[in-house]
Amino acid sequence: MSGSCCVLGLDPGSRNTGFGIVREESGVLSLVDAGVIRVERLGDMDVRLGAIYEALAELLSRHKPGEAALEDVFVSRNPASALKLGQARGAAMAACAVAGVRVHAYEPSLVKKSLVGTGRAEKTQVAFMVAQVLGCRKPLAVDATDALAVAVCHLNQRRFRRLAGEP
Amino acid sequence: MSGSCCVLGLDPGSRNTGFGIVREESGVLSLVDAGVIRVERLGDMDVRLGAIYEALAELLSRHKPGEAALEDVFVSRNPASALKLGQARGAAMAACAVAGVRVHAYEPSLVKKSLVGTGRAEKTQVAFMVAQVLGCRKPLAVDATDALAVAVCHLNQRRFRRLAGEP
Repeated sequence: MSGSCCVLGLDPGSRNTGFGIVREESGVLSLVDAGVIRVERLGDMDVRLGAIYEALAELLSRHKPGEAALEDVFVSRNPASALKLGQARGAAMAACAVAGVRVHAYEPSLVKKSLVGTGRAEKTQVAFMVAQVLGCRKPLAVDATDALAVAVCHLNQRRFRRLAGEP
Repeated sequence: MSGSCCVLGLDPGSRNTGFGIVREESGVLSLVDAGVIRVERLGDMDVRLGAIYEALAELLSRHKPGEAALEDVFVSRNPASALKLGQARGAAMAACAVAGVRVHAYEPSLVKKSLVGTGRAEKTQVAFMVAQVLGCRKPLAVDATDALAVAVCHLNQRRFRRLAGEP
Protein backbone atom coordinates (compact mmCIF):
# COMPACT_ATOMS: atom_id res chain seq x y z
CA MET A 1 0.00 0.00 0.00
CA SER A 2 2.92 2.39 0.62
CA GLY A 3 3.47 2.77 -3.16
CA SER A 4 -0.15 3.80 -3.82
CA CYS A 5 -2.06 6.92 -2.84
CA CYS A 6 -5.34 8.44 -3.96
CA VAL A 7 -5.97 12.19 -3.55
CA LEU A 8 -9.13 14.27 -3.94
CA GLY A 9 -8.48 17.77 -5.29
CA LEU A 10 -11.17 20.37 -4.70
CA ASP A 11 -12.07 23.77 -6.13
CA PRO A 12 -15.13 24.77 -4.07
CA GLY A 13 -17.52 27.51 -5.11
CA SER A 14 -21.10 28.51 -4.29
CA ARG A 15 -22.09 27.84 -7.94
CA ASN A 16 -19.65 25.22 -9.17
CA THR A 17 -17.39 22.95 -7.13
CA GLY A 18 -14.69 21.25 -9.18
CA PHE A 19 -13.31 17.91 -8.06
CA GLY A 20 -10.58 15.64 -9.35
CA ILE A 21 -9.33 12.34 -8.00
CA VAL A 22 -5.79 11.30 -8.86
CA ARG A 23 -4.05 8.04 -8.00
CA GLU A 24 -0.29 7.67 -7.65
CA GLU A 25 0.97 4.14 -8.03
CA SER A 26 4.72 3.44 -8.02
CA GLY A 27 5.36 7.07 -8.96
CA VAL A 28 2.89 7.11 -11.88
CA LEU A 29 -0.11 9.44 -11.71
CA SER A 30 -3.48 8.55 -13.22
CA LEU A 31 -6.88 10.22 -13.39
CA VAL A 32 -9.56 8.32 -11.44
CA ASP A 33 -12.50 10.75 -11.73
CA ALA A 34 -13.10 14.44 -12.32
CA GLY A 35 -16.03 16.74 -12.80
CA VAL A 36 -18.04 19.67 -11.51
CA ILE A 37 -20.78 19.72 -8.88
CA ARG A 38 -23.17 22.36 -10.24
CA VAL A 39 -25.56 23.72 -7.63
CA GLU A 40 -26.60 27.17 -8.89
CA ARG A 41 -29.94 25.93 -10.24
CA LEU A 42 -30.86 24.64 -6.75
CA GLY A 43 -31.48 28.23 -5.63
CA ASP A 44 -31.12 28.97 -1.92
CA MET A 45 -27.67 28.71 -0.36
CA ASP A 46 -28.56 26.17 2.35
CA VAL A 47 -29.84 23.72 -0.27
CA ARG A 48 -26.75 24.30 -2.42
CA LEU A 49 -24.40 23.65 0.50
CA GLY A 50 -26.26 20.45 1.38
CA ALA A 51 -25.91 19.31 -2.23
CA ILE A 52 -22.15 20.04 -2.26
CA TYR A 53 -21.76 18.07 0.98
CA GLU A 54 -23.78 15.09 -0.25
CA ALA A 55 -22.09 14.91 -3.66
CA LEU A 56 -18.65 14.94 -2.02
CA ALA A 57 -19.70 12.43 0.65
CA GLU A 58 -20.75 10.10 -2.19
CA LEU A 59 -17.43 10.59 -4.04
CA LEU A 60 -15.44 10.03 -0.83
CA SER A 61 -17.38 6.86 -0.12
CA ARG A 62 -16.99 5.55 -3.69
CA HIS A 63 -13.30 6.31 -4.31
CA LYS A 64 -11.98 6.35 -0.75
CA PRO A 65 -9.16 8.87 -1.28
CA GLY A 66 -6.61 8.94 1.53
CA GLU A 67 -6.16 12.72 1.49
CA ALA A 68 -7.70 15.86 0.04
CA ALA A 69 -6.27 19.19 -1.14
CA LEU A 70 -7.48 22.63 -2.12
CA GLU A 71 -6.04 26.06 -2.80
CA ASP A 72 -5.59 28.70 -0.15
CA VAL A 73 -7.77 31.64 -1.04
CA PHE A 74 -6.71 35.15 -1.97
CA VAL A 75 -8.24 37.25 0.79
CA SER A 76 -8.14 40.41 -1.31
CA ARG A 77 -11.64 39.62 -2.58
CA ASN A 78 -14.49 41.63 -1.15
CA PRO A 79 -15.97 40.35 2.14
CA ALA A 80 -19.34 39.35 0.60
CA SER A 81 -17.59 37.13 -1.96
CA ALA A 82 -15.26 35.77 0.72
CA LEU A 83 -18.25 34.82 2.88
CA LYS A 84 -19.98 32.95 0.02
CA LEU A 85 -16.77 31.22 -1.00
CA GLY A 86 -16.10 30.36 2.64
CA GLN A 87 -19.52 28.72 2.94
CA ALA A 88 -18.84 26.45 -0.04
CA ARG A 89 -15.38 25.61 1.32
CA GLY A 90 -16.91 24.88 4.73
CA ALA A 91 -19.40 22.38 3.32
CA ALA A 92 -16.66 20.70 1.25
CA MET A 93 -14.09 20.55 4.07
CA ALA A 94 -16.70 19.23 6.52
CA ALA A 95 -17.56 16.41 4.08
CA CYS A 96 -13.88 15.40 3.96
CA ALA A 97 -13.35 15.67 7.72
CA VAL A 98 -16.47 13.64 8.51
CA ALA A 99 -15.16 10.94 6.14
CA GLY A 100 -11.86 10.99 8.07
CA VAL A 101 -9.97 12.54 5.14
CA ARG A 102 -7.59 15.39 6.04
CA VAL A 103 -7.60 18.49 3.84
CA HIS A 104 -4.30 20.15 2.85
CA ALA A 105 -4.19 23.72 1.53
CA TYR A 106 -1.66 25.13 -0.94
CA GLU A 107 -0.86 28.64 -2.14
CA PRO A 108 -2.11 29.13 -5.73
CA SER A 109 1.46 30.08 -6.79
CA LEU A 110 2.79 26.76 -5.45
CA VAL A 111 0.12 24.84 -7.39
CA LYS A 112 1.20 26.60 -10.60
CA LYS A 113 4.88 26.14 -9.85
CA SER A 114 4.35 22.46 -9.12
CA LEU A 115 2.77 21.90 -12.53
CA VAL A 116 4.45 24.41 -14.84
CA GLY A 117 7.64 25.34 -13.00
CA THR A 118 6.67 28.96 -12.34
CA GLY A 119 4.22 30.50 -9.90
CA ARG A 120 3.12 33.01 -12.53
CA ALA A 121 1.92 30.47 -15.11
CA GLU A 122 -1.25 31.14 -17.11
CA LYS A 123 -4.37 29.02 -16.52
CA THR A 124 -4.04 27.52 -20.02
CA GLN A 125 -0.49 26.39 -19.26
CA VAL A 126 -1.64 24.73 -16.03
CA ALA A 127 -4.52 23.02 -17.87
CA PHE A 128 -2.12 21.79 -20.56
CA MET A 129 0.25 20.31 -17.99
CA VAL A 130 -2.59 18.67 -16.01
CA ALA A 131 -3.73 16.96 -19.22
CA GLN A 132 -0.14 15.92 -20.04
CA VAL A 133 0.69 14.56 -16.57
CA LEU A 134 -2.57 12.59 -16.34
CA GLY A 135 -2.71 11.57 -20.02
CA CYS A 136 -6.18 13.14 -20.50
CA ARG A 137 -7.33 13.14 -24.10
CA LYS A 138 -10.78 14.63 -23.54
CA PRO A 139 -11.10 18.31 -22.59
CA LEU A 140 -11.99 18.89 -18.94
CA ALA A 141 -14.15 21.61 -17.38
CA VAL A 142 -12.12 24.53 -15.97
CA ASP A 143 -13.16 23.86 -12.36
CA ALA A 144 -12.28 20.17 -12.71
CA THR A 145 -8.85 21.09 -14.12
CA ASP A 146 -8.19 23.43 -11.18
CA ALA A 147 -9.14 20.65 -8.77
CA LEU A 148 -6.87 18.14 -10.55
CA ALA A 149 -4.02 20.67 -10.48
CA VAL A 150 -4.14 20.96 -6.69
CA ALA A 151 -4.39 17.16 -6.35
CA VAL A 152 -1.24 16.75 -8.50
CA CYS A 153 0.48 19.52 -6.50
CA HIS A 154 -0.32 17.69 -3.27
CA LEU A 155 1.04 14.39 -4.60
CA ASN A 156 4.24 16.18 -5.73
CA GLN A 157 4.67 17.91 -2.37
CA ARG A 158 3.99 14.64 -0.61
CA ARG A 159 6.73 12.94 -2.64
CA PHE A 160 9.19 15.78 -1.91
CA ARG A 161 8.42 15.52 1.81
CA ARG A 162 8.94 11.77 1.73
CA LEU A 163 12.25 12.14 -0.14
CA ALA A 164 13.29 14.75 2.43
CA GLY A 165 12.61 12.19 5.16
CA GLU A 166 9.66 14.09 6.62
CA PRO A 167 6.77 12.06 8.06
CA MET B 1 -49.11 19.06 14.95
CA SER B 2 -50.06 22.47 13.47
CA GLY B 3 -49.88 24.09 16.93
CA SER B 4 -46.34 22.84 17.61
CA CYS B 5 -43.04 23.80 16.01
CA CYS B 6 -39.43 23.26 16.98
CA VAL B 7 -36.70 25.60 15.68
CA LEU B 8 -32.90 25.36 15.80
CA GLY B 9 -31.19 28.73 16.15
CA LEU B 10 -27.54 28.92 15.15
CA ASP B 11 -24.64 31.31 15.73
CA PRO B 12 -21.81 29.67 13.77
CA GLY B 13 -18.15 30.58 14.26
CA SER B 14 -14.80 28.95 13.56
CA ARG B 15 -14.09 28.81 17.32
CA ASN B 16 -17.50 28.60 18.96
CA THR B 17 -20.84 27.73 17.39
CA GLY B 18 -23.81 28.61 19.56
CA PHE B 19 -27.02 26.64 19.23
CA GLY B 20 -30.44 26.91 20.80
CA ILE B 21 -33.55 24.82 20.24
CA VAL B 22 -36.92 26.41 21.02
CA ARG B 23 -40.33 24.77 20.87
CA GLU B 24 -43.56 26.67 20.30
CA GLU B 25 -46.67 24.86 21.46
CA SER B 26 -50.05 26.58 21.29
CA GLY B 27 -48.30 29.96 21.24
CA VAL B 28 -46.05 29.24 24.24
CA LEU B 29 -42.28 29.16 23.75
CA SER B 30 -40.02 26.83 25.72
CA LEU B 31 -36.31 26.09 25.74
CA VAL B 32 -35.49 22.54 24.60
CA ASP B 33 -31.69 22.66 24.51
CA ALA B 34 -28.93 25.24 24.18
CA GLY B 35 -25.16 25.33 24.32
CA VAL B 36 -21.94 25.99 22.49
CA ILE B 37 -19.97 23.68 20.21
CA ARG B 38 -16.35 24.58 21.05
CA VAL B 39 -13.87 23.49 18.40
CA GLU B 40 -10.86 25.79 18.82
CA ARG B 41 -8.82 23.19 20.72
CA LEU B 42 -9.19 20.77 17.79
CA GLY B 43 -6.63 22.81 15.84
CA ASP B 44 -6.78 22.64 12.04
CA MET B 45 -9.81 24.12 10.30
CA ASP B 46 -10.88 20.97 8.42
CA VAL B 47 -11.12 19.02 11.69
CA ARG B 48 -13.03 21.89 13.34
CA LEU B 49 -15.54 22.05 10.48
CA GLY B 50 -16.08 18.30 10.61
CA ALA B 51 -16.72 18.58 14.36
CA ILE B 52 -19.26 21.41 13.87
CA TYR B 53 -21.06 19.33 11.23
CA GLU B 54 -21.14 16.18 13.35
CA ALA B 55 -22.28 17.94 16.52
CA LEU B 56 -25.14 19.61 14.64
CA ALA B 57 -26.05 16.40 12.81
CA GLU B 58 -26.38 14.75 16.22
CA LEU B 59 -28.56 17.61 17.58
CA LEU B 60 -30.74 17.56 14.46
CA SER B 61 -31.20 13.81 14.76
CA ARG B 62 -31.97 13.98 18.50
CA HIS B 63 -34.38 16.94 18.59
CA LYS B 64 -35.72 16.83 15.02
CA PRO B 65 -36.37 20.61 14.64
CA GLY B 66 -38.60 21.45 11.69
CA GLU B 67 -36.69 24.59 10.71
CA ALA B 68 -33.42 26.40 11.44
CA ALA B 69 -32.45 30.07 11.60
CA LEU B 70 -29.31 32.19 11.76
CA GLU B 71 -28.32 35.82 11.42
CA ASP B 72 -27.31 37.40 8.14
CA VAL B 73 -23.73 38.54 8.43
CA PHE B 74 -22.36 42.06 8.33
CA VAL B 75 -20.13 42.00 5.28
CA SER B 76 -18.13 45.00 6.48
CA ARG B 77 -15.70 42.62 8.19
CA ASN B 78 -12.35 42.02 6.55
CA PRO B 79 -12.24 39.32 3.86
CA ALA B 80 -10.05 36.92 5.87
CA SER B 81 -12.55 36.95 8.77
CA ALA B 82 -15.45 36.66 6.34
CA LEU B 83 -13.87 33.57 4.77
CA LYS B 84 -13.37 31.87 8.15
CA LEU B 85 -16.86 32.76 9.31
CA GLY B 86 -18.23 31.57 5.96
CA GLN B 87 -16.55 28.20 6.39
CA ALA B 88 -18.19 27.67 9.79
CA ARG B 89 -21.56 28.77 8.38
CA GLY B 90 -21.09 26.42 5.42
CA ALA B 91 -20.51 23.39 7.65
CA ALA B 92 -23.52 24.33 9.83
CA MET B 93 -25.89 25.04 6.92
CA ALA B 94 -24.84 21.83 5.14
CA ALA B 95 -25.65 19.82 8.29
CA CYS B 96 -29.17 21.31 8.34
CA ALA B 97 -29.76 20.86 4.60
CA VAL B 98 -28.57 17.24 4.64
CA ALA B 99 -31.04 16.62 7.51
CA GLY B 100 -33.80 18.16 5.34
CA VAL B 101 -34.08 21.22 7.61
CA ARG B 102 -34.32 24.57 5.79
CA VAL B 103 -32.25 27.48 7.10
CA HIS B 104 -33.78 30.96 7.36
CA ALA B 105 -31.59 34.06 7.68
CA TYR B 106 -32.52 37.30 9.48
CA GLU B 107 -30.94 40.74 9.65
CA PRO B 108 -29.34 41.28 13.10
CA SER B 109 -31.50 44.40 13.56
CA LEU B 110 -34.68 42.36 13.02
CA VAL B 111 -33.55 39.80 15.61
CA LYS B 112 -33.05 42.60 18.16
CA LYS B 113 -36.33 44.29 17.22
CA SER B 114 -38.18 41.00 17.50
CA LEU B 115 -36.97 40.50 21.09
CA VAL B 116 -36.58 44.00 22.51
CA GLY B 117 -38.72 46.16 20.23
CA THR B 118 -35.83 48.13 18.75
CA GLY B 119 -33.17 47.17 16.21
CA ARG B 120 -30.55 49.09 18.21
CA ALA B 121 -30.90 47.11 21.45
CA GLU B 122 -27.81 46.22 23.48
CA LYS B 123 -26.67 42.60 23.73
CA THR B 124 -27.52 42.55 27.45
CA GLN B 125 -31.10 43.65 26.70
CA VAL B 126 -31.46 40.86 24.10
CA ALA B 127 -30.05 38.32 26.58
CA PHE B 128 -32.46 39.52 29.27
CA MET B 129 -35.46 39.17 26.95
CA VAL B 130 -34.36 35.73 25.72
CA ALA B 131 -34.21 34.55 29.35
CA GLN B 132 -37.62 36.16 30.08
CA VAL B 133 -39.40 34.75 27.03
CA LEU B 134 -38.02 31.24 27.59
CA GLY B 135 -38.20 31.31 31.39
CA CYS B 136 -34.47 30.54 31.79
CA ARG B 137 -33.25 30.73 35.34
CA LYS B 138 -29.66 29.65 34.73
CA PRO B 139 -27.27 31.99 32.90
CA LEU B 140 -26.54 30.96 29.31
CA ALA B 141 -23.30 31.31 27.31
CA VAL B 142 -23.28 34.38 25.03
CA ASP B 143 -23.18 32.31 21.82
CA ALA B 144 -26.07 30.16 23.02
CA THR B 145 -28.12 33.28 23.84
CA ASP B 146 -27.49 34.70 20.35
CA ALA B 147 -28.63 31.40 18.83
CA LEU B 148 -31.77 31.34 20.98
CA ALA B 149 -32.51 34.96 20.01
CA VAL B 150 -32.58 34.14 16.31
CA ALA B 151 -34.71 31.02 16.97
CA VAL B 152 -37.26 33.17 18.86
CA CYS B 153 -37.13 35.79 16.09
CA HIS B 154 -37.88 33.09 13.51
CA LEU B 155 -40.82 31.78 15.52
CA ASN B 156 -42.19 35.33 15.87
CA GLN B 157 -41.78 36.04 12.16
CA ARG B 158 -43.36 32.70 11.34
CA ARG B 159 -46.38 33.59 13.51
CA PHE B 160 -46.68 37.02 11.87
CA ARG B 161 -46.57 35.44 8.43
CA ARG B 162 -49.23 32.93 9.44
CA LEU B 163 -51.45 35.69 10.86
CA ALA B 164 -50.92 37.65 7.62
CA GLY B 165 -52.18 34.61 5.72
CA GLU B 166 -48.84 33.86 4.08
CA PRO B 167 -47.92 30.21 3.47
